[in-house]
Amino acid sequence: MIGIPRGTRDFLPKEATRRKYVFGLIENIFVKHGFQKMETPAMENLDILLGKYGNDEKLIYKILNSGDITGQEVISEKGLRYDLTVPLARVVAMHGSSIPMPFKRYQIQQVWRADRPQKGRYREFTQCDIDIIGSDSLLNELELLQITSEVFSTLNIATEIYINNRKLLQGISEYLDCGDDFVKILTILDKLDKVGISGVRKELIDNNFSVELINKLIELTSLEGTNDNNILSLKLKLNDVPIALEGLNEIEELLGYLNKIGIDNVLFDVSLVRGLSYYTGCIFEVKQKEISVGSICGGGRYNNLTEIFNSSAKYSGVGITFGIDRIYDVMEQLNLFPDQLEVPCHMLFVNFGKQEIEHILPIVTTLRKKGMSIMIYPDNIPVKKQFAYANKLGIPYVAIIGEKEIEDETVTIKMMQSGNQYTVTLKEFFDTN
Amino acid sequence: MIGIPRGTRDFLPKEATRRKYVFGLIENIFVKHGFQKMETPAMENLDILLGKYGNDEKLIYKILNSGDITGQEVISEKGLRYDLTVPLARVVAMHGSSIPMPFKRYQIQQVWRADRPQKGRYREFTQCDIDIIGSDSLLNELELLQITSEVFSTLNIATEIYINNRKLLQGISEYLDCGDDFVKILTILDKLDKVGISGVRKELIDNNFSVELINKLIELTSLEGTNDNNILSLKLKLNDVPIALEGLNEIEELLGYLNKIGIDNVLFDVSLVRGLSYYTGCIFEVKQKEISVGSICGGGRYNNLTEIFNSSAKYSGVGITFGIDRIYDVMEQLNLFPDQLEVPCHMLFVNFGKQEIEHILPIVTTLRKKGMSIMIYPDNIPVKKQFAYANKLGIPYVAIIGEKEIEDETVTIKMMQSGNQYTVTLKEFFDTN
Repeated sequence: MIGIPRGTRDFLPKEATRRKYVFGLIENIFVKHGFQKMETPAMENLDILLGKYGNDEKLIYKILNSGDITGQEVISEKGLRYDLTVPLARVVAMHGSSIPMPFKRYQIQQVWRADRPQKGRYREFTQCDIDIIGSDSLLNELELLQITSEVFSTLNIATEIYINNRKLLQGISEYLDCGDDFVKILTILDKLDKVGISGVRKELIDNNFSVELINKLIELTSLEGTNDNNILSLKLKLNDVPIALEGLNEIEELLGYLNKIGIDNVLFDVSLVRGLSYYTGCIFEVKQKEISVGSICGGGRYNNLTEIFNSSAKYSGVGITFGIDRIYDVMEQLNLFPDQLEVPCHMLFVNFGKQEIEHILPIVTTLRKKGMSIMIYPDNIPVKKQFAYANKLGIPYVAIIGEKEIEDETVTIKMMQSGNQYTVTLKEFFDTN
Repeated sequence: MIGIPRGTRDFLPKEATRRKYVFGLIENIFVKHGFQKMETPAMENLDILLGKYGNDEKLIYKILNSGDITGQEVISEKGLRYDLTVPLARVVAMHGSSIPMPFKRYQIQQVWRADRPQKGRYREFTQCDIDIIGSDSLLNELELLQITSEVFSTLNIATEIYINNRKLLQGISEYLDCGDDFVKILTILDKLDKVGISGVRKELIDNNFSVELINKLIELTSLEGTNDNNILSLKLKLNDVPIALEGLNEIEELLGYLNKIGIDNVLFDVSLVRGLSYYTGCIFEVKQKEISVGSICGGGRYNNLTEIFNSSAKYSGVGITFGIDRIYDVMEQLNLFPDQLEVPCHMLFVNFGKQEIEHILPIVTTLRKKGMSIMIYPDNIPVKKQFAYANKLGIPYVAIIGEKEIEDETVTIKMMQSGNQYTVTLKEFFDTN
């Protein structure tokens, strides 16, 4: 049976071209903000990958050292990249001292996870990360949110951006005085989106948290006012918890900057948690407004990127990941791709045989030099079939140069959509193309 | 020890940006000729990969199904892509009937080989292939050579393109009446470049070929005239071998077309063999003139792409591979990359603190909307250090907006190379950027 591994995909021209379009738009925005491209190998040494992903470690694809798996010794020392964060941390741990800081890098590469494939979840997919390393300034958070906003407005996807701050969550933990239990509480709170307040309450009760604690928690995390009102209300409640106030001030400052540049779709959401444990400051998440596909983008600040390698140098940073595959799915569902993106060329020249081809070759070469995308049909088959080929591929114009056109120094252009055609002199043709 | 697997590479911004530049230029040329992008998964099922690469099969990286290699059952059903030809054949075997033919596709993706790493040979590297499937016309060979020529002239790499034809080689085999021995003869002839005529002669003698055969072979394959003279001379000698004449006619026709479009660096080389056995018609190879890195590009025609899958449908085609890693090395050695490709932005705005930043934010947003690539230094550190950062990254301009500039509605621009600076009104600044 000819096939591909479950959870992987072939991208035939239509899809590959659309992906290229999305990546190109996003990459241009990164570049406008001074981010630099970086790439790392698909294979990483297992000692780099292991111990970094908790329970997900079993999802790492391991690669055999040598060809034969029936032999006695089976050795695997390498695995496939699971995300782009650990490779970034490795690069910074290896080369940090020679990289000018702050280091603004973007990376768009495949990652692999031995996960159970299901709708929207693949074993091979693309991650698209930007990070700013080596600066504690909130302007970095601002820039990531600005880029996020620009990306989605460029792609025409209506979104809401949710922000929160881990310092605030830590402050709430102190306020509730629940110690290590807070990790469990956060895990439950993280499901608010899916199960609602009543679901969260139920699960907290099931986990034997006191009614008093539950009431306090829900009072803090189910604010429904404006950003400003919610910040004010929490400041009053958490007035005695310095770390909470620090988090709230960062949120306030960030929202102030966003206001200055006219970005108004950012919502402060104190129940936003984000699973990954390494965040230490601002966290963000983006949701599409119309289609429920979960988060399509998210990230946050971490205070020590290279911690996982016991590196002596400490690099703080902030990063964001664009869920390219989900973004693609949203765009497809909402029909947001420009028409005819995958049309391979602007014009097809009909093939009438060797003599005509020899006449056409220099003409086509000249047009291509002008930047036009052109095909010559390679085989001398009936013209009808050549037209059919143009139609199948969506090529908008077909150029006809037969005996008569050669004699008259003209070209006949057939507009495939209307079926109309007109004849112009070669000179006119060159002047207008 | 923190590191990466032997034979793999990190691409930090300088190298990643240069690679992006090369890929971009090449991809644009493909698009101008109506080629469509395609991508396939990094992982292929082993039954697709095995039995396709002869002795090189041991170079295929195998992937374990599940995480644990210490367990009883070690199962591997997947391997990493070894080249882009087998995946293309698989795609055509799976989807050929729904793809409009001729199918012109390009594919630029990583491949992995468990080879011994050495200078210029990596375990993970990029292949860049174009193929035209489903047409026997020589115009396809022409187009590939035209693209090849355009690629190298765009990259400013002086090259010579060598062409030959497998039909001619088959004809020579018939003429020499050496049957199955011809494969061995070809293998020896393939080394002509490295060992010279005397080396080829010696090895043929060592392999017990008759002096008569050797003399005939060398007479046929060591022509040093013009393309036209060599074709004529072979036509006379091989006049009784139809398949040889067919091959020669194809070469002649192809050279005729190339002449029509002004491509004059193509040499007919009857000793060109190219190792891969699946070629059946024209073959080509490109060499850089100044640096000896071997072939940087090569390909040819095959008459049945999906043969390896015992597919009933027969797809002929012609393809070419650009050795991107070698091309990169050549460009680096010859210093062919534009200066400052890796400079992350055009202008850095100095950070004097919150008040100035709030003034700067809308200005920078406006400039970015105009397409300018800009950074704001995120931290309020001494200006000298901010200048040093701009210098390290090669950023050509630094914009200074302090208290005075805010009051005067001006901006001071420091040109980092000369150290000179000038002050303009914001209005002038916007008008000229």
